[in-house]
Amino acid sequence: MLDSNRFDAFAYRWLPQLEAEMRTLLGKEQPSLLPFYGMMNYHMGWMDENFQPGDFSAGKRIRPLLCLMACEAVGGDAQQALPAATAIEMLHNFSLVHDDIEDGDEMRRHRRTMWNVWGVPQAINAGDGMFAIAYQAILGLPERGVSAATTVAALGRFTCTCIKLTEGQYLDLSFEDRLDVTVDEYLQMIGGKTGALIAAALAIGALVGGADEEIGEALYRFGYNIGLAFQIRDDLLGIWGEPSVTGKAAGNDLLRQKKSLPVLYALNHPVVGPQLQKLWRYAISSKQLPGVMDLLANAGARDFAEEKVYKFHEEGVQALNDALGARAVASPLMALADGLVERQT
Amino acid sequence: MLDSNRFDAFAYRWLPQLEAEMRTLLGKEQPSLLPFYGMMNYHMGWMDENFQPGDFSAGKRIRPLLCLMACEAVGGDAQQALPAATAIEMLHNFSLVHDDIEDGDEMRRHRRTMWNVWGVPQAINAGDGMFAIAYQAILGLPERGVSAATTVAALGRFTCTCIKLTEGQYLDLSFEDRLDVTVDEYLQMIGGKTGALIAAALAIGALVGGADEEIGEALYRFGYNIGLAFQIRDDLLGIWGEPSVTGKAAGNDLLRQKKSLPVLYALNHPVVGPQLQKLWRYAISSKQLPGVMDLLANAGARDFAEEKVYKFHEEGVQALNDALGARAVASPLMALADGLVERQT
Repeated sequence: MLDSNRFDAFAYRWLPQLEAEMRTLLGKEQPSLLPFYGMMNYHMGWMDENFQPGDFSAGKRIRPLLCLMACEAVGGDAQQALPAATAIEMLHNFSLVHDDIEDGDEMRRHRRTMWNVWGVPQAINAGDGMFAIAYQAILGLPERGVSAATTVAALGRFTCTCIKLTEGQYLDLSFEDRLDVTVDEYLQMIGGKTGALIAAALAIGALVGGADEEIGEALYRFGYNIGLAFQIRDDLLGIWGEPSVTGKAAGNDLLRQKKSLPVLYALNHPVVGPQLQKLWRYAISSKQLPGVMDLLANAGARDFAEEKVYKFHEEGVQALNDALGARAVASPLMALADGLVERQT
Repeated sequence: MLDSNRFDAFAYRWLPQLEAEMRTLLGKEQPSLLPFYGMMNYHMGWMDENFQPGDFSAGKRIRPLLCLMACEAVGGDAQQALPAATAIEMLHNFSLVHDDIEDGDEMRRHRRTMWNVWGVPQAINAGDGMFAIAYQAILGLPERGVSAATTVAALGRFTCTCIKLTEGQYLDLSFEDRLDVTVDEYLQMIGGKTGALIAAALAIGALVGGADEEIGEALYRFGYNIGLAFQIRDDLLGIWGEPSVTGKAAGNDLLRQKKSLPVLYALNHPVVGPQLQKLWRYAISSKQLPGVMDLLANAGARDFAEEKVYKFHEEGVQALNDALGARAVASPLMALADGLVERQT
């Protein structure tokens, strides 16, 4: 996804400032609170389990970069959008910390998750701290010369997104006990968990950049659709991706019985559905994997999901054209959208 | 605490509007999200476990009332402060939902806690939703005619408070494994968990009411000190309160080995400390309670804590006089501060 030169050039220019901004926010030095902020620094990839400085892989920072790009794309000064970009990345990371607890995930990016190191109570609370610090970040907008009115508007957009994230996560958790989740319910769920945050990153960047509402809404639609395409591509890679490229064990998502779009499509299939539902009621063993793969193939689940990726990509591109007109095609945002559909990792 | 007529009259006037404001915020009717908002309505005392309407005791709403009082006390229109008051109560309730998980508390106000009914993952996430909704509430200030600049200032104060809450909770959780917690560390902890939120309620109310900074700071100090006095009074009632009045089982806080101020004072006592520490290393049985009570008496723990209550009360009263001058004595805020020191429940 990041091999596109235009996107990389942008990231190269802005990532150092973004990281510096985030480190400052989490850099409180009061000794009694050191472990509290240390846990957050650990999660962000800047410290090890003993709170010693380190440099661990901690995500691609796509969301904040999108925020800065949107600001620049509408003719604004991306420097002014840095507090919003920082807030978006902090919010994303807060949600990862809590999702890891809620899903019982022990590892993230090849390291133990926060709750796995410091226990559930401290991890819930440190996540809450990151949530609050995300707001502290975005409240830095006026210091960059953004008006109070625009800051309030950005905060409104940001807060709606926080609510949508939790609504999406509610749906995701509630799906665990159900075999009758529909494709529409699934799209509502990933819309909240993935679409809304990417969309908000773009809309807030545009807002800070001084874009009028119509352009902001078009960028929101771009982000929302690209977010859905991104998530469904992830679902596809989790089942049919090449393990040596994705870094995930083959069949992992199926063994975990993750309710991804291809699986839900097959579970709802008039012929294949009942067979797959029988299997899905119990744990799935690696021995059963070939049978599950056959059922997915019979249902045409892969084609269905790939069509959705292309459809959402197309709608996203259309929205980007609406927002930027002739400048869309050469924008790093277009490079990102295209890279995303073709990505293998 | 609420027997004071002046305080009661104020509460009687404002509680219905406050409740209506909060119900609107949590009243989303989208069927697929009903259980998500239902969990929050349950916690607030408005629904039962089956999401049927009910009317359960759900706290005294002291913090939001303080916010409205402060607004009125500085000559503002309390109506304008309603969104901030609502936000403060939502924030308080979010923190209760997460604290219950972190402390493993199964019951609150004679009802099962949220995680105890719907499980930890859903309760973490519903708490996050309430946190975000608290921000949605305070972002309603401009609709009441509050300027964008004042709204941003209120949000800044609110966000600092959120961060302090989580810092205080970090300290509280970290105290569990320690027998060497000092009185100063304890005061820092309750300052974050209790003092900061009550102080912010007052300071934000004053800000919305148009008070100048000096008066806002004095009201902040009033709230902070009253908050500390409130918490230490709670500690005292948890050990020496009359069970038939407090509604808590006798010795409950000691059996739970809660690190309250009297206990910490005794644990740090040069003579009594080592004896109490020996007991504190293991679970405490009801048989051992009289012995523990004797040790607390020998250390003079009750007197020490009561002196602190009076000291913080006095500092609070001084700050209220600084803020309101001659009007302080007849203010419902003074009635509250006095009632608090004498309260038995």
